[in-house]
Amino acid sequence: MKIHDWHTGPYPARVRIAVAEKGLHSQVTFVSVNLRKGEHKRPEFLAKNYSGTLPVLELEDGTFIAECTAITEYLDSLVGSPTLTGTTPREKGVIHMMSRRAELEVLDAISVYFHHATPGLGPDVELYQNPDWGLRQRDRALRGMRYFDEVLRRQPFVAGEAFSMADISLIGGLIFAELVKLPVPAECDALEAWYARMQERPSVRNRLTLSDPAEAPV
Amino acid sequence: MKIHDWHTGPYPARVRIAVAEKGLHSQVTFVSVNLRKGEHKRPEFLAKNYSGTLPVLELEDGTFIAECTAITEYLDSLVGSPTLTGTTPREKGVIHMMSRRAELEVLDAISVYFHHATPGLGPDVELYQNPDWGLRQRDRALRGMRYFDEVLRRQPFVAGEAFSMADISLIGGLIFAELVKLPVPAECDALEAWYARMQERPSVRNRLTLSDPAEAPV
Repeated sequence: MKIHDWHTGPYPARVRIAVAEKGLHSQVTFVSVNLRKGEHKRPEFLAKNYSGTLPVLELEDGTFIAECTAITEYLDSLVGSPTLTGTTPREKGVIHMMSRRAELEVLDAISVYFHHATPGLGPDVELYQNPDWGLRQRDRALRGMRYFDEVLRRQPFVAGEAFSMADISLIGGLIFAELVKLPVPAECDALEAWYARMQERPSVRNRLTLSDPAEAPV
Repeated sequence: MKIHDWHTGPYPARVRIAVAEKGLHSQVTFVSVNLRKGEHKRPEFLAKNYSGTLPVLELEDGTFIAECTAITEYLDSLVGSPTLTGTTPREKGVIHMMSRRAELEVLDAISVYFHHATPGLGPDVELYQNPDWGLRQRDRALRGMRYFDEVLRRQPFVAGEAFSMADISLIGGLIFAELVKLPVPAECDALEAWYARMQERPSVRNRLTLSDPAEAPV
């Protein structure tokens, strides 16, 4: 398998963490797509992923699978435990809900803030910006962090008692928050404690070095 | 199981279609949440779904599952065929990708257009609007329809050779397009032909009458 990504990107991080959690890193080659140069918006990349987002998984048969949740479903089905997307109907439902909620309320909201209310990837890439919308989404992300803080006061992981895709999605959100220097609200102790635990996981800690560092400069 | 929804809503339609495709309608009670009155933004509903969106599935044990994809995963895992989310890793990956793409590029884009660049649900519900963003998303949806038209020239269903959750997500998009009177571009013959076929499916045709019509006025 090949994964087309950019090693420091928050969305690529989600798939890199999933690859490592599933023990699949020896089966993956990483291909660097330079976000800062806008390579993900060029026709040759859009032919791989219409939406122009990273990462994209390329299978041996030439199939391209975009969208982090879709790639995670693929990887999770390839090998058994540990499962990232659940086993029982209830687990699957709750994990997918909490993962999507982490996207909507934190990760995607910060992405919109970054691309619309900050210089983002620079004027050559950010051809349209809507600062008012971006600032609304920043505020949404801060509310979302408070929501997840409440969740993590009641349970050790985002979707309950076990690590899952939902944790990975929220990790992506906090990675993006760091990149854009959006501080987690001071009162969110449980969220901070959870994130500290997550950063101790080898899959999270070593995500930048899964690929050849020479091919993926910081 | 209970499903909290609003019978004419495009997102509720997705879950109603999934329920019918899986033959589960006799196991479901529908509870009407009045979108036009903004009941989905009130505290008692937000306690069920933080994001304030419909539909929400309520399990017998009191668990609430929001987000159409999550609910579809739950329903699809309850009973076997026909499968809506795929069986092999490749099927799962492609179906999740195409479903998410139908959301991003058509359904969610039209939703943003409706809520931000039209009167939407009215001034009591639409407390913040960003018309410029809404119009951008309308244009994105029209481009998205052209993309899916190309896809459907090559294959009979959105994710390939079989009906799946990805078709349901795009059906939701075209239902929303009708509601907001956004015409499908004239050249999109394959998309129109696919949609005509989809509307012949009992799950799509009968979706409004799954619940008691007396409880869910038009």
